[in-house]
Amino acid sequence: MEVKEFDSETYDVIVVGAGHAGSEAALAAARMGEKTLLITINLDMVAFMPCNPSVGGPAKGIVVREIDALGGEMGRNIDKTYIQMRMLNTGKGPAVRALRAQADKNMYHREMKNTLEKEPNLTLRQGIAEKLIVEDGVCKGIVTATGAKYHAKSVVLTAGTSSRGKIIIGELTYSSGPNNSIPSIKLSEDLEKHGFKLTRFKTGTPPRVNKDTIDFDQTIEQPGDKEPNHFSFETPDSSYLQHQISCWMTYTNADTHKIIRENLNRAPMFSGVIKGVGPRYCPSIEDKIVRFADKPRHQIFLEPEGKDTQEYYVGDFSTSMPEEIQLKMLHSVAGLQNAKLMRPGYAIEYDVIEPWQLKLNLETKVVKNLFTAGQMNGTSGYEEAAGQGIMAGINAALRAQGKDPFILHRNEAYIGVLIDDLVTKGTNEPYRLLTSRAEYRLILRHDNADLRLTDKGYALGLINDDRYNAFKEKRQTIKMELDRLSRKMITPKQALPFLKAHDLKPLKDGVLADHFLRRPEVHYQDIIDMVGAADFPVDNRVAEQVEIATKYAGYIKKEQLQIDRLKKMESKKIPARLDYTKVDSLATEAVQKLSKINPETIAQASRISGVNPADIGILSVYIEQGKIAKLPEAN
Amino acid sequence: MEVKEFDSETYDVIVVGAGHAGSEAALAAARMGEKTLLITINLDMVAFMPCNPSVGGPAKGIVVREIDALGGEMGRNIDKTYIQMRMLNTGKGPAVRALRAQADKNMYHREMKNTLEKEPNLTLRQGIAEKLIVEDGVCKGIVTATGAKYHAKSVVLTAGTSSRGKIIIGELTYSSGPNNSIPSIKLSEDLEKHGFKLTRFKTGTPPRVNKDTIDFDQTIEQPGDKEPNHFSFETPDSSYLQHQISCWMTYTNADTHKIIRENLNRAPMFSGVIKGVGPRYCPSIEDKIVRFADKPRHQIFLEPEGKDTQEYYVGDFSTSMPEEIQLKMLHSVAGLQNAKLMRPGYAIEYDVIEPWQLKLNLETKVVKNLFTAGQMNGTSGYEEAAGQGIMAGINAALRAQGKDPFILHRNEAYIGVLIDDLVTKGTNEPYRLLTSRAEYRLILRHDNADLRLTDKGYALGLINDDRYNAFKEKRQTIKMELDRLSRKMITPKQALPFLKAHDLKPLKDGVLADHFLRRPEVHYQDIIDMVGAADFPVDNRVAEQVEIATKYAGYIKKEQLQIDRLKKMESKKIPARLDYTKVDSLATEAVQKLSKINPETIAQASRISGVNPADIGILSVYIEQGKIAKLPEAN
Ligand SMILES: Cc1cc2nc3c(=O)[nH]c(=O)nc-3n(C[C@H](O)[C@H](O)[C@H](O)COP(=O)(O)OP(=O)(O)OC[C@H]3O[C@@H](n4cnc5c(N)ncnc54)[C@H](O)[C@@H]3O)c2cc1C
Ligand SMILES: Cc1cc2nc3c(=O)[nH]c(=O)nc-3n(C[C@H](O)[C@H](O)[C@H](O)COP(=O)(O)OP(=O)(O)OC[C@H]3O[C@@H](n4cnc5c(N)ncnc54)[C@H](O)[C@@H]3O)c2cc1C
Repeated sequence: MEVKEFDSETYDVIVVGAGHAGSEAALAAARMGEKTLLITINLDMVAFMPCNPSVGGPAKGIVVREIDALGGEMGRNIDKTYIQMRMLNTGKGPAVRALRAQADKNMYHREMKNTLEKEPNLTLRQGIAEKLIVEDGVCKGIVTATGAKYHAKSVVLTAGTSSRGKIIIGELTYSSGPNNSIPSIKLSEDLEKHGFKLTRFKTGTPPRVNKDTIDFDQTIEQPGDKEPNHFSFETPDSSYLQHQISCWMTYTNADTHKIIRENLNRAPMFSGVIKGVGPRYCPSIEDKIVRFADKPRHQIFLEPEGKDTQEYYVGDFSTSMPEEIQLKMLHSVAGLQNAKLMRPGYAIEYDVIEPWQLKLNLETKVVKNLFTAGQMNGTSGYEEAAGQGIMAGINAALRAQGKDPFILHRNEAYIGVLIDDLVTKGTNEPYRLLTSRAEYRLILRHDNADLRLTDKGYALGLINDDRYNAFKEKRQTIKMELDRLSRKMITPKQALPFLKAHDLKPLKDGVLADHFLRRPEVHYQDIIDMVGAADFPVDNRVAEQVEIATKYAGYIKKEQLQIDRLKKMESKKIPARLDYTKVDSLATEAVQKLSKINPETIAQASRISGVNPADIGILSVYIEQGKIAKLPEAN
Repeated sequence: MEVKEFDSETYDVIVVGAGHAGSEAALAAARMGEKTLLITINLDMVAFMPCNPSVGGPAKGIVVREIDALGGEMGRNIDKTYIQMRMLNTGKGPAVRALRAQADKNMYHREMKNTLEKEPNLTLRQGIAEKLIVEDGVCKGIVTATGAKYHAKSVVLTAGTSSRGKIIIGELTYSSGPNNSIPSIKLSEDLEKHGFKLTRFKTGTPPRVNKDTIDFDQTIEQPGDKEPNHFSFETPDSSYLQHQISCWMTYTNADTHKIIRENLNRAPMFSGVIKGVGPRYCPSIEDKIVRFADKPRHQIFLEPEGKDTQEYYVGDFSTSMPEEIQLKMLHSVAGLQNAKLMRPGYAIEYDVIEPWQLKLNLETKVVKNLFTAGQMNGTSGYEEAAGQGIMAGINAALRAQGKDPFILHRNEAYIGVLIDDLVTKGTNEPYRLLTSRAEYRLILRHDNADLRLTDKGYALGLINDDRYNAFKEKRQTIKMELDRLSRKMITPKQALPFLKAHDLKPLKDGVLADHFLRRPEVHYQDIIDMVGAADFPVDNRVAEQVEIATKYAGYIKKEQLQIDRLKKMESKKIPARLDYTKVDSLATEAVQKLSKINPETIAQASRISGVNPADIGILSVYIEQGKIAKLPEAN
């Protein structure tokens, strides 16, 4: 029988899919005052973590802080639900320091769901979006499986790995979303009908084992930090979790590798069963064995999935080998000889919208007022999804309000790097954010995400007055303290005890406090011991900023100069619908790439692979001349 | 590509499906010392409640107590996870009193999953059972989708509503297990291949709405009890939940009924979309409107789904109407005018093993050492499922141990009534346990489930020594106190204050305390006030037993006499493979029914519908004569 369609409610913004991207998107739009619908296949899988039960880590942790500074939820949510918190790379510079939390997986889901449920402008509903309502190239809403037509000013799709999902374990393949949920089939078909180019990616997850069957004596403990740290700038140190749960480390060995190598003919990655492209930076263990054939062992992390479960995630052991082989692989590892498998690892193949079809505001070029975010844009990872999610939600809300797009540039945030990379360079494998992808690493730190982005979050209406005032006070205090130290002189006598203790030569003359702080062995507290505290309160977060800003002033200044140059290029807009075939002397490859990506600025154009500096020069001159050949309107 | 099968582990007992039946089955088998595998499609749906977030109520609550007395888990699990506890029918006799708890749905799942994870002899694993291993008519194990062959001495299937599940909402139908989980397809096909007769049943669930959009002022509060009560005989009163969450009551009205009536042509139940038979005692609201056309309104209960969610279950409003109509129906109800739908109601159609194919120990007649339990046997309800589950688990374990079956008779437990009804009478609609189904209601009370069944649980090894000793002490104390009161004389003077206070005539002569207690207005405490307390401790649970045993002594005795008569019939065994066609003068219908059901005793035969007392007489004589015509061995 044909499902009868009916006009259901009208919203300002509709978000499809309540994964990590969709949850942020819907909250951002609702908090910006837009009446928002969030529709998702299964309410019991809101903000579900199908893979590692953890948030943060290098680059990703910075994104979480950025989301938080913009008023997003991921940071607050993990701060409410973590079971372990660790600062990584503490021995290294501030640019690569990263916070990482082990999550209580189920609690993470419950908290996020409840936050969505309580958000006043937001309706959270179980349902399956199957079709877009598109009129004259403009998205006007969606139709669900039950025939409900929802109208809206803008629509955000965040379908994740459910889109025509296919689970793969050895020779077994079957149609399924993550963790045996029903997949989304019709939406993909509809997107193709509207002219979108989809491609297939794959990702994988490792087995889970029962804690009671792990021999922890053969593994190395990874306890949480004692020093309080949080993702959200709102979370007070006082709420730091005292009783944290440890993770554990072990290694693969020659036996493991032998088992894998002997069974590569049954590995879907190599046997041809998997057609989708997998993530280079989250490879399966079989992939690692093949690619790094001479490595004698690989680390494995045993991570608890929550407070009230015995399930342990076998981190860095992702596999889609047949279950038979998975069992052998597992049992070859120290500590896991008798481990009971609770869930086999599996790979999932799914549809992705090739991201060159998107603009920098995550709107699709093909259909106006339609935005996409998350795994379906070709990324991998919860944080990458959430970062895009909040941006798509903000932009969908701005569109509903008839306002200009909100774009974060590469020099402003890792989120900016991520989106610019996707949209400008595209990706032919699941894209993961890495520190190395950013040009301005000393500026895009996790500790200063609030300084970089709170103003913007406030301007968007996503940061409330209380928080904004507290932030402004923090910023002001940093300034005052930097100022004070730049004028305060340390006398040789004041410095003497410190220098003696460190076996260093005494000072001959006085030296300014901020100059002294630049010495590698000196910390902020040492300076205070010498010159005394300010007559205004300076907490440890302010002290951290003062110290970093002072110590790395030279490098930061250099990055800032580069950024200023970039900004000039970014300000050179490329007119819409420019007909590149009409630009004399552009190389053929440049014409093709520029026509496909349709960059919005000369800076963006310069980042497209295959577009050379010569092409950029020609293009700049062409635009400056002002006689622009244009393509006809899309519709 | 063909999935390669491999020999995985060997177990004593394998249980398929970790719903309410499977969880009990696996725990029982493991606790009886059997190495047990519990395999289920989705570990995040262990003991999942796809419908009402509550446990207990009339008849069902008694089953929970019985499960507990046998050493099962449902009682303990709900005691750890309820958000409201209520004793129903307190104004009525003890036979119909019933405990009912509102569950935190997610927590109920988490607790049960964690209990399963921690059980030493138990392996809980995600996987999809697709085939039975059957050799010479004996079940030897299962094969999963990933090709894992598990061998075992006995197998329990508890596939619930997932078997070829089909979700139905108005005109929409799609293949799915409960709540958009992937269904189990191949196991059904395999069962048919082995000769099982499957049939289609259906059940339905109501919409869920967001608490923040309910106008509670228009509804009637249903608070929890202040007096402590628990399901498990192990749970101490001291752990009673102080801050309970209320439920709320409202009503349908003429508008609601009009909306439903005007749209019956789109109701899958009436339009022909639903082929499966629905539950008579959990009808959909559209069914109620049709069947009770003159009822001006129906009660609706608004029930919280948990502590940390805004989801509310709209109880007694189950529907598979199109979403369009569901919204109108909802919004016509007082308090729900502006309610935001979170999940639409839906019906699900699924495969059922016609239960005449089972023996009283829940073993299938077709395949030896194969047991089935729960919704797939044709019942409906978590408690009915769990009750069968523990029995199937026990019997599978006993079979693995080479021991005789464990059967509960109709006079011993509601679980006995349930299984006997299923196996003997079959069912052509989802079977729900009702108080009226039991003949011996005064004996099968919820308050005495421990007295009825703890000995058996202990003998099976499911009750530990501590608990058993406490139980024996309780039983002994009841006996001692009953004894004391049967000898203690109340003098007219002792009775006077009580009688005066109740405006009753003074006694002329002394009267025995237990006789006096039989007066309707007298309670145990009154007696104590007159004759003084015993010199041994009598807690309120003992007092309750003393009072009920005394007050209802006459009725209980009558039921006991009936039971004794029944027992004689139950002891008349019918030889296996009796060829009924060779029994002279049996009515044709009786021959057919008896051949189909293959009753194990004359008593069971007498309960088969279509088998008359005359047939029973003929059969009894035939068996007594001893010359029995037999059918050939099944294989
Ligand atoms: C098996 C597996 C392994 C993974 N391994 C890794 C890894 O190693 N490293 C890593 O970084 N990341 C990994 N991931 C990816 C990680 O899960 C995703 O990056 C992240 O969840 C993406 O978030 P999202 O919001 O884009 O999509 P999801 O979290 O998938 O959420 C999408 C949501 O949309 C819903 N939805 C889809 N279609 C519809 C529709 N038509 N109508 C309504 N709702 C719809 C879905 O039900 C789902 O709730 C893995 C994922 C899976 C499944
Ligand atoms: C929509 C809906 C409405 C309902 N309404 C009511 C109601 O109004 N009143 C009422 O009393 N009851 C109702 N029920 C029924 C109630 O949910 C069941 O009675 C109860 O859950 C049955 O328990 P079970 O253990 O038999 O099955 P389930 O709880 O369904 O558990 C079966 C388990 O087996 C797993 N499984 C299935 N096949 C396989 C396989 N091949 N391999 C591995 N695992 C497998 C499933 O994933 C599931 O976890 C409803 C159920 C549904 C779905």
